[in-house]
Amino acid sequence: MGYRLGIVGATGAVGQEMIKVLAQRKFPIADLKLLASARSTGREFEFEGERIKVREAKPIEFNDLDIALFSAGASVSKALAPEAVKAGCVVIDNSSAFRMEENVPLVVPEVNIGALKTHQGLIANPNCSTIQLVVVINPLHQLYRIRRMVVTTFQSVSGTGRRAIEELRRQSASFLAGEPIEKEVYPHQIAFNLIPQIDVFLDNLYTKEEMKLVNETRKILNDYSIKITSTCVRVPVFISHSESVNLELEKSFELREVRKILKEAPGVKVEDDPGKSIYPMPLMAEGTDFCFVGRIRRDESVKSGLNLWIVADNLRKGAALNAVQIAEELVKLKLV
Amino acid sequence: MGYRLGIVGATGAVGQEMIKVLAQRKFPIADLKLLASARSTGREFEFEGERIKVREAKPIEFNDLDIALFSAGASVSKALAPEAVKAGCVVIDNSSAFRMEENVPLVVPEVNIGALKTHQGLIANPNCSTIQLVVVINPLHQLYRIRRMVVTTFQSVSGTGRRAIEELRRQSASFLAGEPIEKEVYPHQIAFNLIPQIDVFLDNLYTKEEMKLVNETRKILNDYSIKITSTCVRVPVFISHSESVNLELEKSFELREVRKILKEAPGVKVEDDPGKSIYPMPLMAEGTDFCFVGRIRRDESVKSGLNLWIVADNLRKGAALNAVQIAEELVKLKLV
Repeated sequence: MGYRLGIVGATGAVGQEMIKVLAQRKFPIADLKLLASARSTGREFEFEGERIKVREAKPIEFNDLDIALFSAGASVSKALAPEAVKAGCVVIDNSSAFRMEENVPLVVPEVNIGALKTHQGLIANPNCSTIQLVVVINPLHQLYRIRRMVVTTFQSVSGTGRRAIEELRRQSASFLAGEPIEKEVYPHQIAFNLIPQIDVFLDNLYTKEEMKLVNETRKILNDYSIKITSTCVRVPVFISHSESVNLELEKSFELREVRKILKEAPGVKVEDDPGKSIYPMPLMAEGTDFCFVGRIRRDESVKSGLNLWIVADNLRKGAALNAVQIAEELVKLKLV
Repeated sequence: MGYRLGIVGATGAVGQEMIKVLAQRKFPIADLKLLASARSTGREFEFEGERIKVREAKPIEFNDLDIALFSAGASVSKALAPEAVKAGCVVIDNSSAFRMEENVPLVVPEVNIGALKTHQGLIANPNCSTIQLVVVINPLHQLYRIRRMVVTTFQSVSGTGRRAIEELRRQSASFLAGEPIEKEVYPHQIAFNLIPQIDVFLDNLYTKEEMKLVNETRKILNDYSIKITSTCVRVPVFISHSESVNLELEKSFELREVRKILKEAPGVKVEDDPGKSIYPMPLMAEGTDFCFVGRIRRDESVKSGLNLWIVADNLRKGAALNAVQIAEELVKLKLV
């Protein structure tokens, strides 16, 4: 008893995390198919004691699947996701290809499960930095209404993928050994450096990543009145994205009330005891399912201002876990 | 012909940079005295072809000095700076000990030279993250008036000192080798991690570093109406601090006018060509005298909003260079 599930991009950083998360959460699987580009065909991965061979991602592969999790980039999704839907699959797509399309629900289960009900075969998984942000701010938005938000992100290299993880490792070792630094993935050295560019630049001088955070947040919260600006920065961290978030709320609040709401919010874990140097950090979030929040404090520079520091594992809650949670909700709501 | 100059804290990261900057800028020195704690006594450093022995910092050492640059922490400054002033020295203090005292000028030469005129023997050098911020925003404030500012900093370990530089190096090597991580300087691992705490926490849940940025900026700009909030984060970078700065201006602006003003501003270097992946980065700023600014773009989330990304070498412009520049101005203005 279970679902026939396929992972497109199974050999990538997120694909590998999906295999792990499916097993950990005991998702009801009748058959697991691992799909990737031709060059990965034949590689084997273990799932629940079984060795599974990677097959080439082609339209025909979706005929015997119920659910397909896509995480192989926007161009693969654009080419194959519609084919998978045509073949009767429900697609949960981790790429940016369809996120802003009107008939595609963009879902974070803790925030907007309702959006799943009208799905037409394709559901989009939001961008990593957006997911952890909305999980934490949604309960505050529900009660106090967010008027404006200034977000600065500190994003780990795993958001770029496996090759970027290797690049940070290799460059760091070279630097420490006093050897020359080689660049392949990023335009600049990332080891012991910061790169204030994630994804390409748009005409408005923002990066695509910065505008994803603005546009996806509004779509998920279904509130286009929220004003958002963001700056996204790549940092020499392997896993977990961190965010410095400044909120201007419409209604006044008590700090202890904010803490209580966050403590009770689904998917959120408050780590906030400054006196003991307790606050969220990338290393703490790595491998966990929570969106950590700390450094919760009033911003006196504006009426009803609030500062937060939010950290989550970008491969798990920011990608693989959120996709699997969507699949779980589809099962629960009998929408697959 | 020249001044008898002493450096207190000569063996530290900033002290060493001061020796370098004095030589590079050919500051008129008749005699250079290197002072430090008893445990560094006898160490030797080269200055303009001469070997200089480190002496213990004691009140008597200031009797034959004209200028003393202090960079040995607030407690040493509190104990010895008043003694140096009593001995007739002009003190330029890099610690936080006297910065907010009313009769102590807090000076960034590009911004508020005028404040030097009323000095009473002691001049304070602002905090590293404040200096690079005010150099860039002051010309904008003069023209457009800053109403509110949201700042998130990415601060390198050299801001903590030599031992922190060694800690990042050692932890990074251990991590890459799969060996256990040892912590001495920071309460948490800094290698491949982020620590959202710089200095101690205050009652308002902000760190001292965060409030320094707020209070010192207002004092230097001599405008206590500016609203400021900040979040300061330690990042695994050796040298240079970076800042994501969101400004709300009172007057409307044209982006090209902002660029022109910044290009002409003293001490500022605009690095901003997104299409070519040109923007300020820590590695670019290291060893240079500029406050780099890039990612200059309109923030549409508020009327007259502007986003900036500011990077500077925290040991040079953030500390040693600014202190030496103050000394140069004192000489020029015959105030020493």
